[in-house]
Amino acid sequence: MQGIIFGGKSFEHEISIVSAITVSKKIAKVSHFIFLDAGHNFYLIPKEKMIAKTFSSGAYKKMPQLSPIQGGFAYGFLNRKKLVGIQWINIVHGGDGEDGVLASLFAFYGIDFIGPRPAASAVSFDKYLTKMYAKELGVKVVDYALVRKGEAVNLPFDYPVIVKPLTLGSSIGVSIVKEKSGMDYALDTAFEYDDQALIEPFIVGVKEYNLAGALVGDTWELSMIEEPQKEEFLDFDKKYLDFSRTGNANKAEILDKIALDIQEAFKKIYNVYFQGALIRCDFFVIDNEVYLNEINPIPGSLSNYLFDNFSKVLGDLSKKTPQAKEIRVNYHYIDKIHASKGK
Amino acid sequence: MQGIIFGGKSFEHEISIVSAITVSKKIAKVSHFIFLDAGHNFYLIPKEKMIAKTFSSGAYKKMPQLSPIQGGFAYGFLNRKKLVGIQWINIVHGGDGEDGVLASLFAFYGIDFIGPRPAASAVSFDKYLTKMYAKELGVKVVDYALVRKGEAVNLPFDYPVIVKPLTLGSSIGVSIVKEKSGMDYALDTAFEYDDQALIEPFIVGVKEYNLAGALVGDTWELSMIEEPQKEEFLDFDKKYLDFSRTGNANKAEILDKIALDIQEAFKKIYNVYFQGALIRCDFFVIDNEVYLNEINPIPGSLSNYLFDNFSKVLGDLSKKTPQAKEIRVNYHYIDKIHASKGK
Repeated sequence: MQGIIFGGKSFEHEISIVSAITVSKKIAKVSHFIFLDAGHNFYLIPKEKMIAKTFSSGAYKKMPQLSPIQGGFAYGFLNRKKLVGIQWINIVHGGDGEDGVLASLFAFYGIDFIGPRPAASAVSFDKYLTKMYAKELGVKVVDYALVRKGEAVNLPFDYPVIVKPLTLGSSIGVSIVKEKSGMDYALDTAFEYDDQALIEPFIVGVKEYNLAGALVGDTWELSMIEEPQKEEFLDFDKKYLDFSRTGNANKAEILDKIALDIQEAFKKIYNVYFQGALIRCDFFVIDNEVYLNEINPIPGSLSNYLFDNFSKVLGDLSKKTPQAKEIRVNYHYIDKIHASKGK
Repeated sequence: MQGIIFGGKSFEHEISIVSAITVSKKIAKVSHFIFLDAGHNFYLIPKEKMIAKTFSSGAYKKMPQLSPIQGGFAYGFLNRKKLVGIQWINIVHGGDGEDGVLASLFAFYGIDFIGPRPAASAVSFDKYLTKMYAKELGVKVVDYALVRKGEAVNLPFDYPVIVKPLTLGSSIGVSIVKEKSGMDYALDTAFEYDDQALIEPFIVGVKEYNLAGALVGDTWELSMIEEPQKEEFLDFDKKYLDFSRTGNANKAEILDKIALDIQEAFKKIYNVYFQGALIRCDFFVIDNEVYLNEINPIPGSLSNYLFDNFSKVLGDLSKKTPQAKEIRVNYHYIDKIHASKGK
């Protein structure tokens, strides 16, 4: 059985709700829904209540509250019920979902799930770690500078630049800065969300391409490559619509060579840290060279609109999630020390 | 109030117990102890029961079992009690403690703690991520090759080499391989613990130096630099003793210039991902150049023996742990969409 978990204490709480509703319509088999509210409480949501108003109105608070237990969740008090043996699809965008918190909670309670594991979350949620990760794997990235709150800004590249909070997605807190005079305001905006900001050259008119996929066992299941429609850059209002998208992907018209390079870059990024997740990587192409822009380890509406066989891809992935290695705990050393002390 | 949490479902379960007992003797103020057993159950351990036998004999199972709740832990059924407002010192070595699982659990439940946060855990627990992290920060590392189970080994450097499971500490599963014929056995050993192994040149007689510390507010609290006594390399039996050490550190006799370089490398590694933790970095010095060997985000017995003011350092750190940014969740977008639909 499969369920969807969504919500989260995060700036992307709302879009997670929209995303979960969208995905629930694309996968017939999903039988359970868990909403994680901003107070970190879990609620079991009946399928017929999977509409935005359930959450914005607070109506969800009347639904059964869940507690994590080994293997799943439990609810009820005198008549206690267990939800075990369910694989949860993690659609908590941003904090809680993409920073590895829920992945760790699931690891701790031995709950099977689809989504990024803790190390994958770390290298995708933090844009500075993403840069070093991509470079290590031989995938090009655009220049960057890390600025911490209170530090002076000394850029090794020219304006215009793009200023991003270090750890948020969905374009929240992101500004384009055309000249130095605009930097303070852009940094103030970014620092509302994070104590660090990443600054990159802003490349006017750069070509952007998105590719989603997963390694399922030994098989790569890759989506079409889309050239997303965009304004100056994808702002939150615009991007928000992605989370409710179910179709109309704009297949990129690119040379086969570029398409192959994008696929190769995707595979390098994915393997092996992202096993168990369906991710989307956003690339730039500059002078026919492929650059990683960002990794979305839980993309909006799971990028269902990029696949012509979305339900099958997710079904295949569900059978191949990484399982924890068996750990044998023993007390050999303590016993040995006690023995040598004659106790 | 401060407490110590220890144990964990990990190959380092035992040494965490030894470490916790050692640290508890060095900090007078610790009032509470939580043992995490191999089944991921939490138990409240009375101070007088903080002896190894409580755990190796299974006697801990008769002590109160705890459940995490917002702000702390709870126990009891009819007469429910809460442990809130306690800062927990994380002394769970290896899995659960150093891989970010407990850090995420604490983040989720809003529990204050001393120890590495999730992103710091990711870059220190996984030796491949450690390499890229150090390089990015301008700290040298010894050459390396990553080998995945089932893959052929093509080393870009000569024998002898050292083979390590990708994500374990305390020398578990580590082998020195003098020539090619020994590689299969060493990899089999490493793959018992992890599906990936990191291989490095083994540098005979290399000088090793350890430094522990923390950034407390704006102040660096650094330990002495120790040159650890070692055999061919520190095997588990030998290293195990570190976890019960309370003194006799072997202050390194090195040039001031090298000592400064080691301190500078430590500061680069620490800042800012490791805030809230007391860590130990182990360095090599080769031809007067400093190389990072590994980051111990929860070192054995918290490296108390390297400090002459351990209790004060931990006390200072306890007042400066990172606090979560406030997250404001709202339903502006959902409300806007509903409004535009006329609902």
